[in-house]
Amino acid sequence: MSKQAIGFIDSGIGGITVVREALRQLPNETVYYVGDTARMPYGPRPTEEVIKFTWEMVNFLLTKDIKMLVIACNTATAAALPELRAKLDIPVIGVIAPGVRGALRSTKNKRIGVIATEGTVKSRAYADALEAKDKSVVVEQLACPEFVQIVEANQYNTAHTTHVVEEKLQYFADKNIDTLVLGCTHFPLLDVAIAAAMGPEVKLVNSGAVAIENVSGVLDEAGLSNVAPVERQLDEYYTTGSASVFKMMAGHWLDNEDLNVRHLNITSDGLVL
Amino acid sequence: MSKQAIGFIDSGIGGITVVREALRQLPNETVYYVGDTARMPYGPRPTEEVIKFTWEMVNFLLTKDIKMLVIACNTATAAALPELRAKLDIPVIGVIAPGVRGALRSTKNKRIGVIATEGTVKSRAYADALEAKDKSVVVEQLACPEFVQIVEANQYNTAHTTHVVEEKLQYFADKNIDTLVLGCTHFPLLDVAIAAAMGPEVKLVNSGAVAIENVSGVLDEAGLSNVAPVERQLDEYYTTGSASVFKMMAGHWLDNEDLNVRHLNITSDGLVL
Repeated sequence: MSKQAIGFIDSGIGGITVVREALRQLPNETVYYVGDTARMPYGPRPTEEVIKFTWEMVNFLLTKDIKMLVIACNTATAAALPELRAKLDIPVIGVIAPGVRGALRSTKNKRIGVIATEGTVKSRAYADALEAKDKSVVVEQLACPEFVQIVEANQYNTAHTTHVVEEKLQYFADKNIDTLVLGCTHFPLLDVAIAAAMGPEVKLVNSGAVAIENVSGVLDEAGLSNVAPVERQLDEYYTTGSASVFKMMAGHWLDNEDLNVRHLNITSDGLVL
Repeated sequence: MSKQAIGFIDSGIGGITVVREALRQLPNETVYYVGDTARMPYGPRPTEEVIKFTWEMVNFLLTKDIKMLVIACNTATAAALPELRAKLDIPVIGVIAPGVRGALRSTKNKRIGVIATEGTVKSRAYADALEAKDKSVVVEQLACPEFVQIVEANQYNTAHTTHVVEEKLQYFADKNIDTLVLGCTHFPLLDVAIAAAMGPEVKLVNSGAVAIENVSGVLDEAGLSNVAPVERQLDEYYTTGSASVFKMMAGHWLDNEDLNVRHLNITSDGLVL
């Protein structure tokens, strides 16, 4: 057992869906989150820069004595996970490998769809990892950048959104997939519309949800899980952008109006309060 | 990457459903399995004896240079996991904690059913672990020893079985659970009948399937996963009972008539070919 918090990092606010899973699956654990909203999106940036920004978030969280790190961002996972895992003494979990494992657990017919941002689709991070684990798998990828815009604009519950999602996912109509990976942390907010569009035969895999199940396992195996009755510490959220906008958006997603959000300054010494 | 096999141990043949998940989710990995069929069931035995028998299986597999150990047996997991994990240099995964984590990932209404053997239900292994991770969870346990008999008698596909399963699971009719943990390695062979009895609103969690997803994660994090194209080694199955009966039963479950099964003798020096 360890009352230290679990650290989460993301280029912005998408990783909040991963936090939502942590609050749901691991209610005894405390969450510290850093979103680099001021410099999002990471997708178009050079890998070296993504790694540098990621280290700035990590270094800030290390000053707060976290027991584990979750990279709640596909781009940062792809760019920085191996280096972080090699250099840090705490366990590090990304979102890509858990999504891959969840999809392989789910599929029966070995035909798997992946929806993600343009960058993740182009990188083939999910497709290559799926095929490396099982070369008989057929992967159908589709970039859905519109879905990110819809979520960022807080439009995930409208009739128009249902229509846009349904039309976009028509792509899979003749692909005979039985599993669809939500390969972007924004997409779980559209899960109802996505499930309706795909029909009951297709299982959705929320990479962040599997990542948290994975976090739970790593904590168990290391003897670091908090067990009831434990007194939770206050969760802490940090953003390099506007604290009030972050508080409104993340609070809406987490159904919590009282999020404890603070602004971080980007300086040549890293991120500071 | 490591071509060493993953070792599986069980008191008998039930763990073959966990192997089935390994073959499905991790087709690049080689399986070595020991079933202590001659001394099954472990349920009624004193804990010290279960630990002793478990070590005999483990010591045999260690001579075969396994890279990881899966305790594919609820009783042996409950009795021996902490000691094995403390004393072995390789990762050790049981079936209980993964089932718990899978259930917490699945449930939305926090009402979870668990079906298992009498011994597992009485031990409250699942119930206590679920409540330790989330004290707001309500757990409804039901012992279903008949289901083990049905499976052992190879009757899992008959109309009579469907009827027995349906009648037994009526217990959950007024419990409002949204997730049911299959807390015995025999039960995944009845999943069609169980799913039909529970209806589409209840998600089934196969502890063995989650355990293999967990194995996949541990191998990934340790850099021990085999990636395609890799040449798989021949799987090896060992039983302390009749090799021909084991080959017939396990072959049926795995849909493979050519299983490589050998008998192990129980001696004062441990298990030997």
